Amino acid sequence: MKKRVAVLRGDGIGKEVTDAAISVLEAIGRRFHHEFEWVYGLLGGEAIDTVGQPLPDETIRICEESDAIILGAVGGPKWDNHPSHLRPEKGLLQIRKHFELSVNLRPVQAFKSLLSVSPLKEEVAEGVDMMIVRELTGGLYFGEPSFHDNDKAVDTLVYGRDEIERVVVHAFELAKQRRNKVTSVDKANVLESSKLWRKIVEEVAARYPEVEYDHMLVDAAAMKLITYPSAFDVIVTENMFGDILSDEASVITGSLGMLPSASLRVDGFGLYEPIHGSAPDIAGKNIANPIGAILSTAMMLRSSFGMLEEANALEAAVKNVLESGFCTSEFKNIGRQILSTTEMTEKIISEI
Amino acid sequence: MKKRVAVLRGDGIGKEVTDAAISVLEAIGRRFHHEFEWVYGLLGGEAIDTVGQPLPDETIRICEESDAIILGAVGGPKWDNHPSHLRPEKGLLQIRKHFELSVNLRPVQAFKSLLSVSPLKEEVAEGVDMMIVRELTGGLYFGEPSFHDNDKAVDTLVYGRDEIERVVVHAFELAKQRRNKVTSVDKANVLESSKLWRKIVEEVAARYPEVEYDHMLVDAAAMKLITYPSAFDVIVTENMFGDILSDEASVITGSLGMLPSASLRVDGFGLYEPIHGSAPDIAGKNIANPIGAILSTAMMLRSSFGMLEEANALEAAVKNVLESGFCTSEFKNIGRQILSTTEMTEKIISEI
Ligand SMILES: CC(C)[C@H](C(=O)O)[C@@H](O)C(=O)O
Ligand SMILES: CC(C)[C@H](C(=O)O)[C@@H](O)C(=O)O
Repeated sequence: MKKRVAVLRGDGIGKEVTDAAISVLEAIGRRFHHEFEWVYGLLGGEAIDTVGQPLPDETIRICEESDAIILGAVGGPKWDNHPSHLRPEKGLLQIRKHFELSVNLRPVQAFKSLLSVSPLKEEVAEGVDMMIVRELTGGLYFGEPSFHDNDKAVDTLVYGRDEIERVVVHAFELAKQRRNKVTSVDKANVLESSKLWRKIVEEVAARYPEVEYDHMLVDAAAMKLITYPSAFDVIVTENMFGDILSDEASVITGSLGMLPSASLRVDGFGLYEPIHGSAPDIAGKNIANPIGAILSTAMMLRSSFGMLEEANALEAAVKNVLESGFCTSEFKNIGRQILSTTEMTEKIISEI
Repeated sequence: MKKRVAVLRGDGIGKEVTDAAISVLEAIGRRFHHEFEWVYGLLGGEAIDTVGQPLPDETIRICEESDAIILGAVGGPKWDNHPSHLRPEKGLLQIRKHFELSVNLRPVQAFKSLLSVSPLKEEVAEGVDMMIVRELTGGLYFGEPSFHDNDKAVDTLVYGRDEIERVVVHAFELAKQRRNKVTSVDKANVLESSKLWRKIVEEVAARYPEVEYDHMLVDAAAMKLITYPSAFDVIVTENMFGDILSDEASVITGSLGMLPSASLRVDGFGLYEPIHGSAPDIAGKNIANPIGAILSTAMMLRSSFGMLEEANALEAAVKNVLESGFCTSEFKNIGRQILSTTEMTEKIISEI
């Protein structure tokens, strides 16, 4: 197959980890006889500096003409005091909205060999294997009215039935390919939007009798992610709760730099990025962990290109390298061999 | 002094732990020559069953005629399928709003001798000593419009300057009595309300040059509560973020049953309750941990009655009992002596 991929390397370590991911995809292409065409676009801080907008029109065009988007990371202290329409994150929000990337997937998996770096006791973090499904283009993030003056501020949490239904259906579909369990997180004892959410979950669940499901309040979920994280299979929730819970979940295994994400449109088009930030303090030093970016492209192979075998091969390569005792610099002092970004990338490629 | 206290024992273990707290306060009264008058009122499930409302008018009257309120816990499966105006939690929300209990305080402290039960590694949980200050009567919980029909749902996050300012001022005042550090949590990269929040924090901070402060995004805070919880001193945040983060924080030390809370009106009147729920499964068995309820009354002595020495004596008594190796039944298998609710209460009284 031939696929065209828009590459938005972004800022800081976003560039290095994206380059790493591309080298690994090239190796996948060689082994499985696919051809990838890379089309580069600007996003975030660099785009602001270069063309005065976090999401330039040219970047939108490049993405529209591609089969998928891979993204590194955006932001940095340089742009922190910009007005909000000129901040790197604005570019992220705009790209999600423009491409209707309404379903955000954040898998969190414990790597057994790295449990010693988890902030949780090893027996608590062990066996964690969950998928957080976050609604990404609705709720408080985009509702109107939304304004503030010197005395008052308003944000609006709006959801339509369709917006809720499509993400909930996605969660139930995923559960069928996993352990058949969905936990829907809401705040139905307080929020009207959560009452509608819960109702729609009930309706969708009725169409998936083979999938077990429950409802959990967001405060209870925030606790259980720490006390008993391995109990979760698929979690589905609205945008703001998903933002908080997915970041909370991302640190429980101690391997933030390894975690991928996918943001999908209903037709399978998607944007793939590691969940870590641009880490300006370590940018350009060839020490960043490229695994989050690399595993994000495995999600792309699977979700946007239907290349299941290829995705599995890529994930297996990463796993082998980790199990052979290699890691990157954030895991110092645990008796493992530390590789640079490019060395880690080469090691993974050698396993493909 | 003579103080009249409204006692809302609520449902499940709420009753037993409130009784325990009252016995301990009686002991404090004897030692320090205070007289407490207890006036009992209904709240929550029992109130629904008895008079058909979660917060009966009679209870409001009792509370209005008292100097403070102590509360056990409300709720239980029996009322879970009631319509929302007839649910126990509704009583809680109404009492907060009626008495303008706008500042919720949730201290989280690690007891060194119990760190083995924390889900976090002992070295991560060690030294945790934070105070979460949550705005309790504004934001998404009470904003209008707020409705849902079959196709659409809306909730509204509204804040006025005064609502934000009073809770932020409270946080800075508390920081002065602690380690002089405030972390304000918001989502200023997305929400308009957070932008106003951040602005007001800046203004208030300027009046407290001796207090160090920073802003943290709610997703970053959800991570740091797990990776480095001992870094926090005072956290201040809006209602919904506070709900999630305070529950998240409550499990990091492994001693949920020990944690107290206070919900305060600006004039010092307040409602005091343990943060745990009504735990219907263990209700009536005399095994519930009364320490959360007991420590809540220490907060009452301090915040509503200005009885600092008394509050310190009570807290010291609890600490001594824990350090002598006693605990309640949730801490089994850690080689400590398990006491029943009433035995634990007597032990604490014997230390006063
Ligand atoms: C940068 C920010 C707007 C964004 C969000 O809140 O969605 C980020 O935290 C994320 O989770 O991707
Ligand atoms: C019961 C519920 C309405 C309440 C809240 O969300 O405020 C509870 O979770 C709390 O934190 O006291």
